[in-house]
Amino acid sequence: MRKLLFLALLAVFVSCEKGDSNSKDYKDASLSIDERVEALLPKLSIEEKVAQMRIFHANIGTKPDANGNLKLSKKVIEKLKLGIAGIKNPGEHIDAVAAAKMNNELQKYIIENNRWGIPALFVTESYNGVDAEGCTRFGRPMTSAASFNPELVQRQWDVVGREARLRGMHMCHSPEADLVRDPRFGRMSEAFGEDTYLTTQMVKNAVIGVQGNYEGLGNGTHIGAVTKHFAAYGQVLGGSNFAAIEISPRTLIDEIYPPFEAAVKEAKTLGIMASHGDINGVASHGNPELLTGVLRDQWGFEGYVVSDSNDIARLFYFMNVAESPEAAAQMGLEAGIDIDLYAEDSYAYLPEMVKKNPELEKLIDRSVRRVLRTKFILGLFDNPYINIEDVEKGNRAESSLELAKESDLESIILLKNEAKTLPLDAKKPTKIALLGPLVTENTKAMFESVVGDNIKFVAEKGFHLTDEKGGEPKLLPRDGKALDKLVSIARSSDVIVLFMGGDEFTSKEAFFNHALGDRATIDPVGPQDELVERVKALGKPVIVVLKHRRTLSINAIAEHADAILDTWDLSEFGDESTARIIFGEVSPSGKSPVTIPRSIGQLPFHYSMKEINYKKEYLFLGKGPLYPFGHGLSYANFEYSDIKISNSEMTPDTELEVSITVTNTSDVKAKEVVQMYIKDEIGSVTRPDKELKGFQKIAFDAGESKTVSFKITPKMLEFTGITMEKVLESGDYTVMIGTSSKDYLETTFKLKK
Amino acid sequence: MRKLLFLALLAVFVSCEKGDSNSKDYKDASLSIDERVEALLPKLSIEEKVAQMRIFHANIGTKPDANGNLKLSKKVIEKLKLGIAGIKNPGEHIDAVAAAKMNNELQKYIIENNRWGIPALFVTESYNGVDAEGCTRFGRPMTSAASFNPELVQRQWDVVGREARLRGMHMCHSPEADLVRDPRFGRMSEAFGEDTYLTTQMVKNAVIGVQGNYEGLGNGTHIGAVTKHFAAYGQVLGGSNFAAIEISPRTLIDEIYPPFEAAVKEAKTLGIMASHGDINGVASHGNPELLTGVLRDQWGFEGYVVSDSNDIARLFYFMNVAESPEAAAQMGLEAGIDIDLYAEDSYAYLPEMVKKNPELEKLIDRSVRRVLRTKFILGLFDNPYINIEDVEKGNRAESSLELAKESDLESIILLKNEAKTLPLDAKKPTKIALLGPLVTENTKAMFESVVGDNIKFVAEKGFHLTDEKGGEPKLLPRDGKALDKLVSIARSSDVIVLFMGGDEFTSKEAFFNHALGDRATIDPVGPQDELVERVKALGKPVIVVLKHRRTLSINAIAEHADAILDTWDLSEFGDESTARIIFGEVSPSGKSPVTIPRSIGQLPFHYSMKEINYKKEYLFLGKGPLYPFGHGLSYANFEYSDIKISNSEMTPDTELEVSITVTNTSDVKAKEVVQMYIKDEIGSVTRPDKELKGFQKIAFDAGESKTVSFKITPKMLEFTGITMEKVLESGDYTVMIGTSSKDYLETTFKLKK
Repeated sequence: MRKLLFLALLAVFVSCEKGDSNSKDYKDASLSIDERVEALLPKLSIEEKVAQMRIFHANIGTKPDANGNLKLSKKVIEKLKLGIAGIKNPGEHIDAVAAAKMNNELQKYIIENNRWGIPALFVTESYNGVDAEGCTRFGRPMTSAASFNPELVQRQWDVVGREARLRGMHMCHSPEADLVRDPRFGRMSEAFGEDTYLTTQMVKNAVIGVQGNYEGLGNGTHIGAVTKHFAAYGQVLGGSNFAAIEISPRTLIDEIYPPFEAAVKEAKTLGIMASHGDINGVASHGNPELLTGVLRDQWGFEGYVVSDSNDIARLFYFMNVAESPEAAAQMGLEAGIDIDLYAEDSYAYLPEMVKKNPELEKLIDRSVRRVLRTKFILGLFDNPYINIEDVEKGNRAESSLELAKESDLESIILLKNEAKTLPLDAKKPTKIALLGPLVTENTKAMFESVVGDNIKFVAEKGFHLTDEKGGEPKLLPRDGKALDKLVSIARSSDVIVLFMGGDEFTSKEAFFNHALGDRATIDPVGPQDELVERVKALGKPVIVVLKHRRTLSINAIAEHADAILDTWDLSEFGDESTARIIFGEVSPSGKSPVTIPRSIGQLPFHYSMKEINYKKEYLFLGKGPLYPFGHGLSYANFEYSDIKISNSEMTPDTELEVSITVTNTSDVKAKEVVQMYIKDEIGSVTRPDKELKGFQKIAFDAGESKTVSFKITPKMLEFTGITMEKVLESGDYTVMIGTSSKDYLETTFKLKK
Repeated sequence: MRKLLFLALLAVFVSCEKGDSNSKDYKDASLSIDERVEALLPKLSIEEKVAQMRIFHANIGTKPDANGNLKLSKKVIEKLKLGIAGIKNPGEHIDAVAAAKMNNELQKYIIENNRWGIPALFVTESYNGVDAEGCTRFGRPMTSAASFNPELVQRQWDVVGREARLRGMHMCHSPEADLVRDPRFGRMSEAFGEDTYLTTQMVKNAVIGVQGNYEGLGNGTHIGAVTKHFAAYGQVLGGSNFAAIEISPRTLIDEIYPPFEAAVKEAKTLGIMASHGDINGVASHGNPELLTGVLRDQWGFEGYVVSDSNDIARLFYFMNVAESPEAAAQMGLEAGIDIDLYAEDSYAYLPEMVKKNPELEKLIDRSVRRVLRTKFILGLFDNPYINIEDVEKGNRAESSLELAKESDLESIILLKNEAKTLPLDAKKPTKIALLGPLVTENTKAMFESVVGDNIKFVAEKGFHLTDEKGGEPKLLPRDGKALDKLVSIARSSDVIVLFMGGDEFTSKEAFFNHALGDRATIDPVGPQDELVERVKALGKPVIVVLKHRRTLSINAIAEHADAILDTWDLSEFGDESTARIIFGEVSPSGKSPVTIPRSIGQLPFHYSMKEINYKKEYLFLGKGPLYPFGHGLSYANFEYSDIKISNSEMTPDTELEVSITVTNTSDVKAKEVVQMYIKDEIGSVTRPDKELKGFQKIAFDAGESKTVSFKITPKMLEFTGITMEKVLESGDYTVMIGTSSKDYLETTFKLKK
């Protein structure tokens, strides 16, 4: 160790001799970040530089031993001699305190074992809380999206950022800014739904939250976001992971880019991850127009771009757009990928390649600067270690757990409530059956914890949907006996709550055959339809609680259930939250962040599609969606009236205000999401049927009436016109304000230029 | 009449005075067409010019009276005073001779009642024969495509051209050059399938056929083709007619354009019809880059572009890309639409618009030139009338009817033939049941006409699939008695032939609600699956004959039937042709022109998709398609061996030859479609999994062996590269030759530049 330190000092001395750029000490915290980066970069050998462009996964050899002490594999020890950009998921399987200790030890080892003492980024994922043992588990992004409450999302991701930093993490490969419009896609619940505006608000706030409003980065309380997957990853053909992506260039700019643009420009995301896929044939990992032209030149992004797992090498062996692994590495480098995630056969070749092509070093320097800059922003050169006492206090704080519950309560969507089936009266002595394949071992206890002794619960799962024995999940055959048993329990109960939807195997990230997760149908699997039909036939109130990770075409459930609560995938307190909604402790206020189709055959189907055919149906199929985007009922009753616009004309320099009166005509206190959609009646290109351009989640007391106002700005009306330039076009616009994308009042205005 | 003639002569005289451009007589057949056009055009008033840009439908008032004589409505008389570009479908409901007579009379009236004696174009459609009473009815284009025999298609369309001209037609709004890759689309059977190369060959030959190799136009034996719908109409989102179209610009050029380009450059189509839809937001009827840039500047098209029905006006009232009907008219005119089909509120406004904007007249002249040119090409100024004796001899000639049968026999696809169920022995005394919803009143008679008395047939439809009472087709509920009856007949028979698929309502051109034709599922409707399962349970041979107009996911049929003949929609002799195949008079040689998926949820799904995900499946679904593109069995057995390539390297200036030995190892004479696919292993952009680049339909005697050779030209390997220029890229290519897109031998070569 002493020898290394000596060498390091010598190197600083030597480099100081070399001239201006190195005359400053990168360890001097009084210098600007740019000065420190420029002071450090020239010292690095080409091998050390390239090491700053690679992240490896902790599972190759940075584990705690039986005593919780760090144990490094030979492979890792060898790697760390050159330093490293980062390590993914160190300590993911141990609790927060143990992880913090181990990561301190690991960081110390890294700093002390590379010539310049460069710290590493420890990287996690966090779509529903930090992806590691012992952290607060929130609902998935699709669930949070249903809250239509970006402020709540920001608080949730603030907790994520804090809990991640406490266990020694510095970056997370989250959030997902992809639009998910195809429910066949196994990853759809990892993103915030089908809509550009809603996703933009949520992603922006997720990044702001996890980064502690950017200030949390340097002061060591939060972590950097890596917003992904740039771009159009949600648009894989057939909803099939790794499939080709075909998209109109105009849709790409107007609908897919905005969440990323907001993450960069408004939330200052530290990182961006490129998409596995291509865009109209051009692999995103080899696309300089995208990664440099749009991201940096247009939007001013200054952070780093990381590849998705092995995706630079995949330009060669999977996408077949590079002739060799070296050509793939060069393609990724030139396009603007700064960090190679995981691959052993890609950027690893750069030092050799530079010998033949010295010009490449400029591109390498460009990337290394971005990585070093990130490490300086995060304060890792100055304060690389975690204070363990903070971890004990801060992880899974009571307020964090309460926040998880609060998020749940705002995210549960009441799709249907025939004859006010819900809420149930907790005071009325009743026997309630909690039945079906999505009942868990905690369901009964959680329900009991919410109500007093008046209610007697019986819980029975009945049957599983899938069986993963032998490695590959299979659908289970109909189990008649299990169904009979459930019906029999239902028969002896007063009210039946059916827990249905999908399990962890019916929707998941798909890799290759034998590790599948995308589906060709979105009908509920197994005998779930039969279950609801048979139980309904008993003539008792039937409440369905949907738990799922992809949109399901719940035709039979929609027909037979008296009430439906769509919960997607809630926090670790999910069933408790559901019980609190069922018993009316809180009125539901979630709204569907996706269009719910009747059939997979209706795809593509999102509310904002071009109207030129939107109103034409398929033969022999019901009309429209099963439930529209933005739909969600309440225990209260909201009446919309008196829509007003401040002026019937607008100019490119003015704004309008539209207001509406919303009245809670019930005696139930509740929140309502007031939604504003705008339609451009005539455009130089075909225009969306309507687009969400504003929403507000507002609390109403019983009987309370409020005037809700929205601004309409010229910016909201811009789109990519016929010449592919952003335009603001004069003409007629319709403004719709209401409780869903299908239920609203409207007014109009004219834009004059 | 005399007065008009006098005026006409006067006008000629007056215009002759005016100077050079008019010094020639447009009626002088010794002049070139261009000279005649330029001589005529300046004489026309603006109203007369615009009349040459409009086509109306005969149903507004050009009908025969009870005696077969022409009867014109007041509206039509008023219109014809100015002349007219054309009339759609005059005489469509009367037989060929009556139509020819009436159309002669109509043409005479038109010529004599406009100042310059300009004849009209009489326009029909012809996707399966002339769309009029009394013409030979061929199979639909999808059916012909299955023949993989472009020479046969050319002969078929030659008959179409002749029969159309004989009844007084001059143009047809056919063929469709669209790629149909979404079986939800109600019009899919009107086009030639999913593949670019196959569609290109078929469309090119259809145009050559119908135009009599272009020479048939001027000598009055054939008609002009209007190739449609330019462009990408088959790519409507969700397979829903009138829906928006989103497509990669590269796919548009490489996969959608080629059939149109061949129709223009190789087959010299006289006309092009624009697509109802948009391309990535830009309405095709208002797209100058498409209609002028690509079509004329790049491809050199000189004919006219006609709108689809009312589609110029629809730029305003449907696509919402024009502020008014006048703006729509201007947009269409500027984009390059020469003829307005049907609308009363679009080009009708041009004369008024020219008063305010005289510049428009140049564009009007541009269009009128193209229309007049077409009329001169067709010889209408010189020989406007039909010789009635020719009609009597030529319409429905014996050779034409034989050709319809020949086409059928080459188009029927043997999807499955378990244990050589087919062919049946016509000599063996047997009782055969012909059952199911697609049995017609002629089925039994047609089967009886094919075999001798040894076979006893019983035919029973059993149930209908739809009921159109009340205007809107509805699916019929399961009729248990009807099913029982069919099963009972099957039980007392030796062999069962089930006629299943879809009827005329389950797949058709969709307009608006109450006139639907697109579907959200492609599962067979009604209790057809139950029928095949119950009949199969009897333990007797079950042969399924599929009749349908969209691809169907025939999972149950594929599982239970012993043999499946996929016939799509054959000629008027369809059931006879099917019987001839069933009894082995001819071995089937059709190949599927589409991929047959297991589920609508697998879409998009065509064989040439990018391989980056092609091999990954959906969870809980069978692997791959039910039947791949190019699949079709034979009663013979073909063995492929000994694939050879003339050189393992190719340069941009050389061609290669690939050959393979195909041996008919059976004692059955049969035809086989030998298919060549090429894969570009590495590209600057992601490349298709494989692409059909050649096929040959070859007759084999029993036991015969042939060497089949294909040329590989550099042109075949070109595609739109990363810079959007056409490129030929060096590197490795794989050549596959075989009996389907899934069953082949392969070799490789390297392209060196």
